[in-house]
Amino acid sequence: MSDTLAKLESTIAARRHADPSTSYVAKLNARGVGKIAQKVGEEATETVIAALSGDREELVGEAADLLFHLMVLLGARDVPLGDVLAELDRREGLSGIAEKAARKAD
Amino acid sequence: MSDTLAKLESTIAARRHADPSTSYVAKLNARGVGKIAQKVGEEATETVIAALSGDREELVGEAADLLFHLMVLLGARDVPLGDVLAELDRREGLSGIAEKAARKAD
Amino acid sequence: MSDTLAKLESTIAARRHADPSTSYVAKLNARGVGKIAQKVGEEATETVIAALSGDREELVGEAADLLFHLMVLLGARDVPLGDVLAELDRREGLSGIAEKAARKAD
Amino acid sequence: MSDTLAKLESTIAARRHADPSTSYVAKLNARGVGKIAQKVGEEATETVIAALSGDREELVGEAADLLFHLMVLLGARDVPLGDVLAELDRREGLSGIAEKAARKAD
Repeated sequence: MSDTLAKLESTIAARRHADPSTSYVAKLNARGVGKIAQKVGEEATETVIAALSGDREELVGEAADLLFHLMVLLGARDVPLGDVLAELDRREGLSGIAEKAARKAD
Repeated sequence: MSDTLAKLESTIAARRHADPSTSYVAKLNARGVGKIAQKVGEEATETVIAALSGDREELVGEAADLLFHLMVLLGARDVPLGDVLAELDRREGLSGIAEKAARKAD
Repeated sequence: MSDTLAKLESTIAARRHADPSTSYVAKLNARGVGKIAQKVGEEATETVIAALSGDREELVGEAADLLFHLMVLLGARDVPLGDVLAELDRREGLSGIAEKAARKAD
Repeated sequence: MSDTLAKLESTIAARRHADPSTSYVAKLNARGVGKIAQKVGEEATETVIAALSGDREELVGEAADLLFHLMVLLGARDVPLGDVLAELDRREGLSGIAEKAARKAD
């Protein structure tokens, strides 16, 4: 499981400053963080729709799109995925409703 | 890196049918897929805002929230994270703009 | 102020079953409610980004896009805009925090 | 139709600098544009979900929530709703696919 995301993170880092005409990651970065953030929002909406439609394959594809663009966004802000996973680990030490209370009130 | 998401997936699966009064995951599942999907949309918006605000720590926290709720959504639809990662692996075999073209037109 | 939205609503209703190759509204409707809903989600994300970027003209354009697609969505579900405005009127009778409490807890 | 939005815009403007403990609009503004934008994103997600669920009444309520928060956002950025409607009018002069092409490529 780890290998996929670690490799994806390396690939994104390597392509970030590549030629925008041959790399989608480079093209997104050339258009700026606003554009990358917009793609994260779009893919989240598509994931929501796929989850509600009940089409399992579509959900897999949209969740992959969302994860991919989230990682491009983290890369554009120089945030290692490891920092996000460490935050999840930290919360995992807590449990049940307590964990939620620790995360945030809503 | 792998351990965090694998453990999180197990924890979510274990809590899914727990007592909603003591588990946030159980509470979300009790409220249905629509509610879980809504949380994914909300956390994506917060991730977008954190990325634009430039607050690194906030981005880490919101991305963790987004990943967490995405995994709860996948769990609610019985989609293993492994299927999503396999889809990312498949795409990773492709490259640059070609990869994008294979993913979808936009 | 009223005229714009009333006219827009009529136009959307008139075009809904037009030829998808010559009408954007017809094209959206031919692709289904899921696609229209997706556009609403996308335009909302773009509105969020424009509001945070501080570019006034961009915000005007994105808010117009959001309103337009919201009206196409309402049309696809046969919900008159008048029903939504009546709901806003009803709330307007209430005030301050009370109005919020009446709307929903969060 | 016009009266509702015109009155709502006046009410929002009047409450914007009111006491946050008694006015929801004041409370949102006190929390900043980021928070208001976040609410727009959330309500858009809920509108998407309501449209897909097929619950007409829920769609009316969520569309009202979305419109309301969009107007609070415009107010926070000093953008009159009239500017957004003028932009819609401008586009309405165009037609069919041409209108879409004028709006933006996607």
